[in-house]
Amino acid sequence: MKRFISLAECSDNEIEEMLKLASALERAPDPTLLAGKVLGLIFLEPSVRTLASFQTAMARLGGSSFVISPGRGSWGMEWRPGVTMDGVAAEHMNEAIPVLEQYADALGLRCFGRGVSVAEDLQDPLMSVVAGLAAKPLINLESACGHPCQALADWKTLEDLQIPRQGGRFVLSWANHPRPLPIAVPRSTLLMAARRGMDVTVLAPPGFELPEEVMGEARALAATSGGAVQSTSNREQAMQGAQVLYAKSWRAPSAFGDDEREAALRAAVGDWCVDEPWFAGADPDAVFMHCLPVRRNVVVSDAVLDGPRSRVVHQAGNRLNAQMGVLAKLFSNNNGPEDPR
Amino acid sequence: MKRFISLAECSDNEIEEMLKLASALERAPDPTLLAGKVLGLIFLEPSVRTLASFQTAMARLGGSSFVISPGRGSWGMEWRPGVTMDGVAAEHMNEAIPVLEQYADALGLRCFGRGVSVAEDLQDPLMSVVAGLAAKPLINLESACGHPCQALADWKTLEDLQIPRQGGRFVLSWANHPRPLPIAVPRSTLLMAARRGMDVTVLAPPGFELPEEVMGEARALAATSGGAVQSTSNREQAMQGAQVLYAKSWRAPSAFGDDEREAALRAAVGDWCVDEPWFAGADPDAVFMHCLPVRRNVVVSDAVLDGPRSRVVHQAGNRLNAQMGVLAKLFSNNNGPEDPR
Amino acid sequence: MKRFISLAECSDNEIEEMLKLASALERAPDPTLLAGKVLGLIFLEPSVRTLASFQTAMARLGGSSFVISPGRGSWGMEWRPGVTMDGVAAEHMNEAIPVLEQYADALGLRCFGRGVSVAEDLQDPLMSVVAGLAAKPLINLESACGHPCQALADWKTLEDLQIPRQGGRFVLSWANHPRPLPIAVPRSTLLMAARRGMDVTVLAPPGFELPEEVMGEARALAATSGGAVQSTSNREQAMQGAQVLYAKSWRAPSAFGDDEREAALRAAVGDWCVDEPWFAGADPDAVFMHCLPVRRNVVVSDAVLDGPRSRVVHQAGNRLNAQMGVLAKLFSNNNGPEDPR
Repeated sequence: MKRFISLAECSDNEIEEMLKLASALERAPDPTLLAGKVLGLIFLEPSVRTLASFQTAMARLGGSSFVISPGRGSWGMEWRPGVTMDGVAAEHMNEAIPVLEQYADALGLRCFGRGVSVAEDLQDPLMSVVAGLAAKPLINLESACGHPCQALADWKTLEDLQIPRQGGRFVLSWANHPRPLPIAVPRSTLLMAARRGMDVTVLAPPGFELPEEVMGEARALAATSGGAVQSTSNREQAMQGAQVLYAKSWRAPSAFGDDEREAALRAAVGDWCVDEPWFAGADPDAVFMHCLPVRRNVVVSDAVLDGPRSRVVHQAGNRLNAQMGVLAKLFSNNNGPEDPR
Repeated sequence: MKRFISLAECSDNEIEEMLKLASALERAPDPTLLAGKVLGLIFLEPSVRTLASFQTAMARLGGSSFVISPGRGSWGMEWRPGVTMDGVAAEHMNEAIPVLEQYADALGLRCFGRGVSVAEDLQDPLMSVVAGLAAKPLINLESACGHPCQALADWKTLEDLQIPRQGGRFVLSWANHPRPLPIAVPRSTLLMAARRGMDVTVLAPPGFELPEEVMGEARALAATSGGAVQSTSNREQAMQGAQVLYAKSWRAPSAFGDDEREAALRAAVGDWCVDEPWFAGADPDAVFMHCLPVRRNVVVSDAVLDGPRSRVVHQAGNRLNAQMGVLAKLFSNNNGPEDPR
Repeated sequence: MKRFISLAECSDNEIEEMLKLASALERAPDPTLLAGKVLGLIFLEPSVRTLASFQTAMARLGGSSFVISPGRGSWGMEWRPGVTMDGVAAEHMNEAIPVLEQYADALGLRCFGRGVSVAEDLQDPLMSVVAGLAAKPLINLESACGHPCQALADWKTLEDLQIPRQGGRFVLSWANHPRPLPIAVPRSTLLMAARRGMDVTVLAPPGFELPEEVMGEARALAATSGGAVQSTSNREQAMQGAQVLYAKSWRAPSAFGDDEREAALRAAVGDWCVDEPWFAGADPDAVFMHCLPVRRNVVVSDAVLDGPRSRVVHQAGNRLNAQMGVLAKLFSNNNGPEDPR
C-alpha cells in the first residue's frame, strides 16, 4: 500500500490488515515502529482531531511530525495547472509537494471542495493533483469527497461494538446545521457501511438526498459485500430496527452552487435535530454516531449526545488507533513492488 | 496529585515536592522520565513562554506535545451547558476534552476570563467546566483567576534568591498598561507570597485595590503560614524595607464590566511606571519581578528592567524548571488512590 | 562557530566543514547527534521550507524544536531600544531572546526588512539587535539583508551539480512579481556565487540594479576568491555561455521607500518572466535555479520550471541537508574558545 487517499483504493485485505494493526497498536503502541520517521501534515483547512491524533500517532510510534498551515503560518497554495500566479497564492503544489517530500517520509493533506458542483467535488480536483505529484506515501486528511481516516476509525468502532457486518442496520441521517457542509464525510460513511456489508439507509429531507453518483457507488459496493443500500425521507421507516444512527449535515446536493436556494432549503428543515424520539422504532441498543465536531442542540440534542447511546468519543478515540494502523501499513515493507496508481 | 489547576488545591507537601523536583530536573533533566508521554496543549489565548517552556519541558524529559489553538488553526470552542450551538463555535468542550484525552496523557488549557464581573472571573467558569470534564491530569496554563505555573516558578525564584519565607518583605504593585488586563497573575502572585509566609503589601492606586474576596483568601493563607497581608495606595509606605517589588497591571476591580470608566481610571494613573526612585526606602538589594511579557517604559522603566534589580529573565527560566517539576509530579506513581475532586 | 547569521561571518574552513557535514548527514543522518537538544524557531514572517526543514533537521538528528509566531499564535514583538511600549507589541526582544534561550539550546529568527531604505535594510536592524542579545547559537532564518541557509543550500547544490567554482558562469536575474520583495535572497545569492569564485553577472532592468553597496561587497569577495562580478540589463549578453540562471524578484533599489514609483517601475518590466528563449546563448546544460516559493508564469514559465533545466526542488532539498550541516557545526565542540562577536 503506497498511499491512503480513499478506502476505495484499498483491497479488502489491506483494510483488514489496517484494522488488525489498529487494534494491536491500540493495546500496545510500539515506540520503535516509526523511529526516525517524519510525517508532514499540510492543513489547508482547520483541524482539531486530525492534527492532534496524527501528531500523537507519530509520537507514540517513535516518529515525529511537522505542520504547515498555508494561509495561516504560511502563504496560500495554488494547485491548478497553467495558472499565471499573480494573485494571492505565492506557491504552487507542483513545487510544494516534491519539496516537502524531501523532508518528510510521508505527507498528509487536508483540502476541502468548493461546493459549487457535485461533479467537481467528486472529482476531488486538488487531492487528485497532489496525489499525482506525490512519490511518497500520501494520506488524505479529508478532501472534497472523502475522509478515509474517519471511515476507517468508524469501521473499527463498529467492530469494537460488535455490530454485525452482514445485515447490521445502519442509518446515515442528514441533520441540521447553520452552514452548508461538504459531502466528504457522508460519502465516506455511506461507502464504508456499504462495503462492510451492512443494510444501509440514507435518511434525508427532500432536496438533501445524496447525489445519485454517490448512491450508485454505494450500491455497487453493497452488491459485492452482500449489503444493501436505500434512501428515504421517512424517518420512522428508516429507523425501524436501526442499530446505528450516524448523523451528519451536508450541503443540499440539489442546490450545489446556489447558496441562497441551499440556505432556504436548510431553513425549512431546521427541526432535523436528532433527539431521543427518533429512536422509537430502533433496536433498543441502537447507538448514536457522529464524526465531530458536532453542534449541540442543532445537529443532536444534549440528551442523546450525553446519553448512553452516544459513541462519538469512542469514534474519535479510534482516529488515533486507525491512523496508527494506516501509518504502520504505509511504512511497512510488505507493500509489494507495484504502485497502485 | 491528579491535576494542577491552582496552588490552593496542592498540599504543602506537594508544593515542596514540586519545588524539589524542579531544582533536581533543572540540574539534570532526565530524558527517560516521560518517555512515550504526550502532552496536549490547548491555547484559547496567545502564548510565548508557556508554549515554548511546556514543549521544551516535554522534550527534555523524553516526551512530546501537540498544540491546538481554537480560533486560529481550528474552530472556536463552546463550553457553556445547554447552549444551542448555532453561532461561531463549532465544537463543545464536552466532546473536545474527552476526545483529546484519548490522544494525550495530560492536557493543558489556557483560557482567560471576560472581565465583566469579579465574581464570574473568580469562579473561573471555563476552567471549572473543563476540570469537571477531565479524567486525566489537567494543567492550568492561565485561566480567568489564576496562573499557578507562574506562581510556582516565582516561588522557586524566591527560593533561588534566598529571600526568606517568614518575614520576607514582598510588594505586589499595580502598574500602568494601555489595556485592561486579567486578575489571574496578581491573584496567583498574592496567594503564593502569602502562602510562603511573607509579609505582603498590595500597592495600588485608588480604584485598583484587589477585590476583597482575593484579599480575604490571602489573609487566610497568611494566617496559616505565619505571613501578613495588607493593602495601601501609599507607595513610600509600601516600599519601606521591601525585598521584592513584583509589578503587574490589572483591570480596575472597582470598574469591572464598565470599560469606559475603567479606561478613565487607568488614564489617571499613567504615571504608575516602576522606576528606580520607587526603591528609595527599599532594602538595598531589593529585586524587581514581573511575569512577562512586560511593556517597557509603561509598566517599568528601561533603567529598572535592564538594571541589576531585575529578575524577570530568571523568573521566566524557572517556568521551564517549575513545569518539569509539575509534570514529574503529575506523572509519578505516588499520587495515592484518591482523586482530589 | 557560535552563530550562523551570514556567510560573511563564516571562515572558508567553516563553510567547507558545513558543506561536508551536510553531505555526510544527507547520506546518513545521525539520530544521536542532537539527542536532547531543542531548537527554538521564531517566525515574525511566514514560512514553509524553513519551518519544515528545520523541524525535520532536528528530528532526523534526534533533537526537537518549538515554533513561536509572534502576531499569530502570540503577540507582536518590539525590538527598538528606548521605546515606550504603548502600541501593539506586548513584548520586547530584550526579554524574549534571553527568556527563550533558557528553554532552547539554539534559536532561529526570521524577520524581514521594511524596504523603505537600502541603508536600513543592509544594516539588518532587527537581526542585529537580536544577535547582540543572543548568548546561545543564533540562526538567521532570513532577515532584512540575508538568507544564509538558502545560500549554503545553493552552494551545496552547485557542488552537487559539479558546476565549477572557478570560472563557473552564474547569472542572477531579476524577474517579475506582483509584489515588491526583499533584497535578502538576491544579496545572499550574489555574495555566495562571488565567494565561490564564480564569474557572476547580475542581470536586471534599469532601476532594478542591485545597490552599489551590495555590488561592492560582491566585488570584494570576488577579488579574494578569484571570481568576477558584473552587472548589465542586456539579457543576451548576460546569458552568453551561462551555466546557471538564478532568478529572483526584488524591490527596485532605485525606488526604495516610494511604493508608487516602485510599482510603476515594475509594471513596465512585466515581461521579465524567465522562459526558454532566455537560454538561447547559454551553455546547453545550463540550469535554472530559484529559492522558492515561485510564482509560475510570472517569475518563470511552466515550460522552464517543469523542464529539464529546473533544479529548484533539488535546491529546496538541500535546505534540509545544509541546515543539518549548520546545526551539526553549531552544536559541535570544536568551536574554539572565543566568541566571534
